[in-house]
Amino acid sequence: MTTTPALSLPAAGAPFERVDLPLRELRDDDILIDIAYAGICHSDIHTGRDEWFPAHYPLTPGHEIAGTVAAVGPGVTRHQVGDRVGVGCLVDSCGECEWCKNGQEMFCTKPAVGTYNAQGYDGEWTAGGYAQRVVVSERFVLRIPDAMGLDVAAPLLCAGITTYSPLRRWGAGPGVKVAVVGVGGLGHMAVKIAAAMGAEVTTISRSNAKAEDALALGARAHLATSAENALSEARGSFDLIVNTVSAELPMDSYLRLLRPNGVMANVGLPMTPYSVFPWGVIGGNKVLTGSQIGGIPETQEMLDFCAEHGLGATIEMLDASDPAAVNDAWDRVVAGDVRYRVVIDTSTISAG
Amino acid sequence: MTTTPALSLPAAGAPFERVDLPLRELRDDDILIDIAYAGICHSDIHTGRDEWFPAHYPLTPGHEIAGTVAAVGPGVTRHQVGDRVGVGCLVDSCGECEWCKNGQEMFCTKPAVGTYNAQGYDGEWTAGGYAQRVVVSERFVLRIPDAMGLDVAAPLLCAGITTYSPLRRWGAGPGVKVAVVGVGGLGHMAVKIAAAMGAEVTTISRSNAKAEDALALGARAHLATSAENALSEARGSFDLIVNTVSAELPMDSYLRLLRPNGVMANVGLPMTPYSVFPWGVIGGNKVLTGSQIGGIPETQEMLDFCAEHGLGATIEMLDASDPAAVNDAWDRVVAGDVRYRVVIDTSTISAG
Repeated sequence: MTTTPALSLPAAGAPFERVDLPLRELRDDDILIDIAYAGICHSDIHTGRDEWFPAHYPLTPGHEIAGTVAAVGPGVTRHQVGDRVGVGCLVDSCGECEWCKNGQEMFCTKPAVGTYNAQGYDGEWTAGGYAQRVVVSERFVLRIPDAMGLDVAAPLLCAGITTYSPLRRWGAGPGVKVAVVGVGGLGHMAVKIAAAMGAEVTTISRSNAKAEDALALGARAHLATSAENALSEARGSFDLIVNTVSAELPMDSYLRLLRPNGVMANVGLPMTPYSVFPWGVIGGNKVLTGSQIGGIPETQEMLDFCAEHGLGATIEMLDASDPAAVNDAWDRVVAGDVRYRVVIDTSTISAG
Repeated sequence: MTTTPALSLPAAGAPFERVDLPLRELRDDDILIDIAYAGICHSDIHTGRDEWFPAHYPLTPGHEIAGTVAAVGPGVTRHQVGDRVGVGCLVDSCGECEWCKNGQEMFCTKPAVGTYNAQGYDGEWTAGGYAQRVVVSERFVLRIPDAMGLDVAAPLLCAGITTYSPLRRWGAGPGVKVAVVGVGGLGHMAVKIAAAMGAEVTTISRSNAKAEDALALGARAHLATSAENALSEARGSFDLIVNTVSAELPMDSYLRLLRPNGVMANVGLPMTPYSVFPWGVIGGNKVLTGSQIGGIPETQEMLDFCAEHGLGATIEMLDASDPAAVNDAWDRVVAGDVRYRVVIDTSTISAG
């Protein structure tokens, strides 16, 4: 059986270990990918530490995968050996329900299969991108445009599509005032993408620590909520707020930042309920919504959009020769200390 | 000074009294309306009983007004004496801000002036339709199509537009599964309008008491939430829920009734916060929103739509010769005992 060097968590709270993971034989529509880079997403941490939905161990996280095609199954038509490709949060779906046909595979009724910590239709648990190789059906393999480095492309497969999708759905563009809450892995991509769409972007976070960076990323202004009256003075300022933080927020205060018909789109996922005063959405016809990653066609559209506009993630490269380096990087992500996405150089996994 | 017979509340909790209200001299753009009918809206009761935003007494409620033009100011061009007309929830706005120009006068930044319990730009308190006459700027006077009785038209000026607006915004039409929560004054209009738009309508209320009526109004099915597992069995059934009840609802359970991309639009206004589990909107890209009446152009569009489809409110006519009859009617509205809108025959106000 073919295997791949990978990093694996044996249990919640345990440090990463270097392991050899089995890879399935290529099915008709399968692609073997040589992974070059894997982004570290905050949801890897929530899952790996068993803070979200139940985690299954041993666990190899990673759903921000970029690499090249190493081999293809006999029926593969979309990609060929040597192609630059990516894999995001999904690796399978039924392909037949209305959502799959509509290009919203994340809503597949079967349901869809996540890239890691999910049981595939064959009963096997999926393993993600903190590895050197992965096998994925071609239906979930994206084309990475030549103009884009694989390193800065990797985080787009989750952070990019998760922010692109609500920005598109809710009409970010010229004349639209967009606020991005949180300047982190998702937030920094929301700023870049919204600005490239032509929107007027303001970033919002607790302090001014990332204010300069925010302007460099494409924001026109930064709002620090720790400043007295900052939120009340900004009432009625925005058409769309993309909230990327997974901490609790005073939702009523944020809804008041919206103009009439405005939209608060949440992509950060706290585990405690929002409290929303009914008049906060009824008065002004406001919208409180969320957005769950994005479908495969829209993910390709996002990659092409980013290439066209010269966008990629702002990254720190991580050498994972010592698996403990990944645990340390997770701590830095949680502390908000990363600017703005850590990407694992997966070639270092086998060393050490 | 000209006056009009009217019903007035001297204080919160006091019964209605028969009074003579002063009417302002007609300004250039003013219309004097002989009121024929005034609908009783649940918000009259919330306001009259000082349960909502602060009420100013003495108070003459009523923002579902239908009648005929009795006189016009010298600059009036939109209506003439004898025209069948209506007035809804608004009687003035600045006319110059982006929302006024955009036909969403309810969001006027000055702000807009309510039909009763509001201070006009001249400092005088407005008085509503529980009266025989009212003076309103022509900009807020709607045309009632000839095909429609004034009695069944009156409730459309609030209950009609309040339900029509979110149904239009969120795409009710053929192939769209719409649920209407609450079969009362607003709910019964939501059913009629959504069905006329071609949507597949289900009504939802606690019991089956109004199930037969709901089908007669245009619903294809009725769901009683008191039935065991009713809500959990209906998970993922609807594209759009219009919630017309102002009682607290388990919002998470209702969000689960939505299909992916679905919308929960609230028009009933409770005074306690919604509790919403974040994954309830993020998972499935769902929308929690509200809708605040509607602008003047859309109100006219709604009246024309209702006339075209032969729609009017289902009403009970009220003789108000004894003002206490209105207090009694309010109690019946609160008890959910009205099918489906009480309309005051305002010609009875001066008698007794």
